[in-house]
Amino acid sequence: MSVIRLSHGSGGVETSEIVERLFISRLGEALKKLPGGLGLDFPDDAAAIPMGDGRYLVVTVDSYTVNPPFFPGGDIGILAASGSINDVLMLGGKPIAMLDAVVVEEGLPMETLDKVVNSFLSVLKSEGIALIGGDFKVMPRGQLDKIVITTVGIGVADRIIVDKPKPGDKIIVTDYVGDHGAVIMMLQYGENPGAFKSDVKPLTKLMLPLLEKYSHYIHAARDPTRGGLSMVLNDWAKTGGGVIVVEEEAIPVRSEVASYAHMLGIDPLHLASEGVAVLAVEPSVAEEALKFIQSLGFTNARIIGEFRESQRYRGYVLLKTQSGGFRILEPPRGDLVPRIC
Amino acid sequence: MSVIRLSHGSGGVETSEIVERLFISRLGEALKKLPGGLGLDFPDDAAAIPMGDGRYLVVTVDSYTVNPPFFPGGDIGILAASGSINDVLMLGGKPIAMLDAVVVEEGLPMETLDKVVNSFLSVLKSEGIALIGGDFKVMPRGQLDKIVITTVGIGVADRIIVDKPKPGDKIIVTDYVGDHGAVIMMLQYGENPGAFKSDVKPLTKLMLPLLEKYSHYIHAARDPTRGGLSMVLNDWAKTGGGVIVVEEEAIPVRSEVASYAHMLGIDPLHLASEGVAVLAVEPSVAEEALKFIQSLGFTNARIIGEFRESQRYRGYVLLKTQSGGFRILEPPRGDLVPRIC
Repeated sequence: MSVIRLSHGSGGVETSEIVERLFISRLGEALKKLPGGLGLDFPDDAAAIPMGDGRYLVVTVDSYTVNPPFFPGGDIGILAASGSINDVLMLGGKPIAMLDAVVVEEGLPMETLDKVVNSFLSVLKSEGIALIGGDFKVMPRGQLDKIVITTVGIGVADRIIVDKPKPGDKIIVTDYVGDHGAVIMMLQYGENPGAFKSDVKPLTKLMLPLLEKYSHYIHAARDPTRGGLSMVLNDWAKTGGGVIVVEEEAIPVRSEVASYAHMLGIDPLHLASEGVAVLAVEPSVAEEALKFIQSLGFTNARIIGEFRESQRYRGYVLLKTQSGGFRILEPPRGDLVPRIC
Repeated sequence: MSVIRLSHGSGGVETSEIVERLFISRLGEALKKLPGGLGLDFPDDAAAIPMGDGRYLVVTVDSYTVNPPFFPGGDIGILAASGSINDVLMLGGKPIAMLDAVVVEEGLPMETLDKVVNSFLSVLKSEGIALIGGDFKVMPRGQLDKIVITTVGIGVADRIIVDKPKPGDKIIVTDYVGDHGAVIMMLQYGENPGAFKSDVKPLTKLMLPLLEKYSHYIHAARDPTRGGLSMVLNDWAKTGGGVIVVEEEAIPVRSEVASYAHMLGIDPLHLASEGVAVLAVEPSVAEEALKFIQSLGFTNARIIGEFRESQRYRGYVLLKTQSGGFRILEPPRGDLVPRIC
């Protein structure tokens, strides 16, 4: 008997496959999106609904299950707010409102819930995002581990960024990748993360100025959460119909993250980030955009490679190693770490 | 130490209190809704966002946890689709799109998930509602009982129905109340529900024609889910600032439901329905609207009472009993039955 495995939820190849098989393949074209909008017809961070005046309403939903719910650098409340804000931003939207659905386990200390909700609301308050609706449910003791928060992010976009890189586009990564994934893994393995912490944060201070200045030059934008940078680049190689060539040494990865991942036999490029953007930018403005991103405080931002036309390597991501050779960067498979977000 | 209790999630007084205390009271007025819209400033089924052309976008989110996931008359997939469709309708919206976030337990038979997703999609297909986005996560074995589905319902409304009954309004109930709650309770108590089944269904065939014809005369509309008819009427007595007087014998309750509830010492008016609407309608058209509702196939619809101005009983629901006396219909408290929806 076929059963659900952890890998079905890890955000890699198996997640794409099960979502395609159970949902997408069963819907006719007309029921995958609204006319003129973006929906399940295209793999992206959020959906878009045309507003009739040329603008789009951007909507996204995610369930957050992270375990443990409190971790260095944040908690499930900050994650749930930031994650949906970032998904709206990555489609080119300005986040304006949110809804939440909270399910908690009977017996959870009120103090725990109180802290989580305060964290969640603190992000909305500092971002000026309204909480316009929600749901609250309780499951009996033993039927849910602590808490699951689902958030709906809503934004408005003048233009949406449909993730299709164009030949020549430079790939920019705005910060160190894999921090969130590494910290959650350490905690789940019972290790002390020391001073090391999650990168979870809303990316409004990065994306709103960037969109205002460069939205016409950004052909793809994604935050590398579950599945990591590797999943984003592999998706883009496919949607763009070409190859992505990346310089391994240009990718910003903290040495602690790299060595921890290697110790466990995991590619750090498969680890989730929760406060990083990956962008495909027109080459003529890429250097200038990079400097602008750095001037916004994202000083670790780097150009890590580019998207190219290719018949031979169409749909692949090639990693140029420090020795000068190339290796194929495979999209993640299997279960790296459950409940990472 | 204060902890989360099942009653916090039962949709009654304790749910209102915890949501008010943790969320609503902590948000300034500006962050409870979008300008000109409807949000956490007012207790209703869904939120409304002005579209700039006089219309509103209606958005709602709910997490469905029903246990067992399959029950006579439906399953968690049908419930998750219908519930969010109905919440859009009750605010006066025409449902056009949905997003979903599914969290399942590792080890769940694929066949189970397959059936649930097929049920969910079958509702969207028969209603012509697009599925434009989603999320899929897996929690390790033992950390979640089977499945939780969160759905986001999206619709468009020319006018929204903000639940404020006006003096003289007749209260219409469109069908037998409490069927869903009674069936789930029977199953949780290990009893055989026999031929008896849940009323779960989308209410588009009722509400769309009704809104087209009578939307200006409907001053409140709600589906009596968690908390039952009692919670709806108590909410309306408060938002309207008057009293609701109901004829007990006019309320459509199946005799099986009434006797099962009484056996357990529960008021059947506290039991959830998932395919029923409660409406407050201007008295001049109430009889005509009732006939129209019955002509749509809802032959059990009844006028059960009215909303009146009252200083003395402001905020109360009075039930006129068969003996001619009155009793106060209290809003539900405590935990009737967990995971009812």
